[in-house]
Amino acid sequence: MALLFLSKPERAAVWAEVFAEAGEALVIGEEAVTDPAAITHLLCWMPPKDLRRYPNLRVVISAGAGVDQMPPMPQGVELVRTLDPGIEEMVRDWVVMATLMLHRRMKDYLAQAEQGLWKAQETVHARTARVGIMGMGRIGTLAAETLGALGFRVSGWSRSGRAAAGVPVFDASGTDDFLAQSDILVCLLPLTDQTRGILNADLFARLPAGAALVHAGRGAQLDMDAMRAALDRGALRSAMLDVTNPEPLPADHWAWRDPRVIITPHVAAETDHRTGALHALSVIRATRENRPLPGRVDPGRGY
Amino acid sequence: MALLFLSKPERAAVWAEVFAEAGEALVIGEEAVTDPAAITHLLCWMPPKDLRRYPNLRVVISAGAGVDQMPPMPQGVELVRTLDPGIEEMVRDWVVMATLMLHRRMKDYLAQAEQGLWKAQETVHARTARVGIMGMGRIGTLAAETLGALGFRVSGWSRSGRAAAGVPVFDASGTDDFLAQSDILVCLLPLTDQTRGILNADLFARLPAGAALVHAGRGAQLDMDAMRAALDRGALRSAMLDVTNPEPLPADHWAWRDPRVIITPHVAAETDHRTGALHALSVIRATRENRPLPGRVDPGRGY
Repeated sequence: MALLFLSKPERAAVWAEVFAEAGEALVIGEEAVTDPAAITHLLCWMPPKDLRRYPNLRVVISAGAGVDQMPPMPQGVELVRTLDPGIEEMVRDWVVMATLMLHRRMKDYLAQAEQGLWKAQETVHARTARVGIMGMGRIGTLAAETLGALGFRVSGWSRSGRAAAGVPVFDASGTDDFLAQSDILVCLLPLTDQTRGILNADLFARLPAGAALVHAGRGAQLDMDAMRAALDRGALRSAMLDVTNPEPLPADHWAWRDPRVIITPHVAAETDHRTGALHALSVIRATRENRPLPGRVDPGRGY
Repeated sequence: MALLFLSKPERAAVWAEVFAEAGEALVIGEEAVTDPAAITHLLCWMPPKDLRRYPNLRVVISAGAGVDQMPPMPQGVELVRTLDPGIEEMVRDWVVMATLMLHRRMKDYLAQAEQGLWKAQETVHARTARVGIMGMGRIGTLAAETLGALGFRVSGWSRSGRAAAGVPVFDASGTDDFLAQSDILVCLLPLTDQTRGILNADLFARLPAGAALVHAGRGAQLDMDAMRAALDRGALRSAMLDVTNPEPLPADHWAWRDPRVIITPHVAAETDHRTGALHALSVIRATRENRPLPGRVDPGRGY
C-alpha cells in the first residue's frame, strides 16, 4: 500500500517524516509516481480528473474536514475526511470571536477609529443576546458550550433535534420558532442538497429585526444578494463570514467594503500537519486490517 | 438618609424607580438639592469640587468598578465602588474577544478586506499561544478560565501570587519569567502608584519577540510612545486597547490609524442601571445598620 500526497508543499515535509517513522510508503506529487498500481490511498483537497490511472485506489482522504468539494467516488473507492480535533476547536474559536465581535459592535468601533472618533456605542451583557446555532455536530456543540458559559442565551437547530451542550435544540418542525429567537444566527451546517442556499431571503425574513449572521458553514449555503437586501432593509444588522459565495471572493465584490460585513478568507481552521499525517496512517492501517475507516463519509448523508 | 445622584440622565429613570419601590430618598442632580444636610450618600464618577456643601456626607459611591479617578475622600467619608458581577463578565468577554482577534490576526484580515484580498495568514491553534494575565482578581480569574478552556496556555501575575483558575500565578519575584513566556500579555491591573506606567519600554523588552498586548486596565499604566517603539522594532506585533493614555484619545493621535493597533473607547463594560441602583440601596442599608459597606475601597491599597 502507498499513499499519494497531493497537497501543500509545506505539509509534505512533515508527512514524509511521519510516514518514514511508521515505515509506510508515501509518494509526493503525481510526477513522482513510478508504479500507479501501487497507489491505494490518495490525500488531496480535490482529486485529479482521472482516477482510473490508479487501478488499485481504495481510499481518497480529503485534506480538510469538509468533503463537499469532492466529486462522487468511483465504484469501490471510499471517501474519508481528515479527523483533527484541533480543527473543530479552531472553528469554535473563530465562531466565539465572530459572535463577540458582532455583539460588541467591533465594526462600528473600527470605522470610528479611522476617523479618530472616541464614542461609546451601546455596551450590553452577553445575556441580552440569543444565539441560534444551525448545525449541532461537534463544532456546534463546542460553540454552544463556550457561548453559553459567556452568558449568551444559546439554542441549536439540527436534523435530529437531539439535545446537546445543555441547550434546547430545535428540529425542522421548530424552524420558525428557532429563527424568530436568533438575535445572532450562527451557521455551521455541512453542505448538502438540503442546505445549499439555505441562508436566503426567506430565512432572513424570519429572524428578529436587526439580527446578526455568523457564517462558518459553506459559501454555497449563502445567497449573498439576499443578505445584502436584508442588511439594506434592517432585517440584518451585520454579518461576519469565513466562507463566501463565490469563493474566493473577487477583489471587486461589494461585500469586501460593506461597512456591515466582516470577511475572513476561509481561515477558521487549518489541519495541523502532523495530526493529518497520523490520521492518514490510521486510515491505511484500518484498510489493511479491514476495520472501519476513521472519518469515513456516509455517501447517503454526504458528510 | 438620602442619595444624591450625579450620573448619566439615561440611568436616572431606572434609579428613581428602584429607590421609589424601596422607599429610599433619591435626589437627582445638585440643582434639586433643597437640604444639603440630608445628603448622606453620593453616586458619581467624579465628585463635585466642594464636598463640604454636604456636612453629613458619609459615603461616595463610584458609578463604575474603578475608583482611581476619585480624589482622596474627606475625613469620615467612605469610598465604595459599584459592585456588578455583570461588569466583570463584560470585561472578560472583551478580553476573550481581543485575545482571539490578535491571535487570529484580525487586523491583517481587515486590512486585506479593504483591498479585496483573499489571502490566508497563518492559522494556528490556541494551544500554540501562551497568554499572561497581569491582575488575577475576579476579572483575571474569569478570563483565565475561558481562555484556558479554549486551549490557550494561560498564566497569571499578581501581588500575592495566589493560584487561581487552575493556572500558575507568578508574584513579583517571578516577573521576568512571567513576561518571558507571555506571547499575549493581558493587563487587567487596577491603577495604583505601583502600576502607573507599568507597561513601559523595560516591560516590552522582556516579552518574547513579536508578542501581542491586550490592555483593559487603565490608560495611565501604558506608555504609548514606548508601545509604538516596541511595535516598530518588532518586540510587539500588535495591540488591542480599551484604555488609552491620554483618554479620551485625541482624534489626531497616531494610534487610531496604526495598522497594528485596535482601539475601543473604554467600552469593555458598562454597569447595568438596575444592578447599580440595587447595589446603592444595599450600601445605604449597610450604612444605616453599621454593617461593612459592600464594595468599600481600602484606602491603603487604593482598590
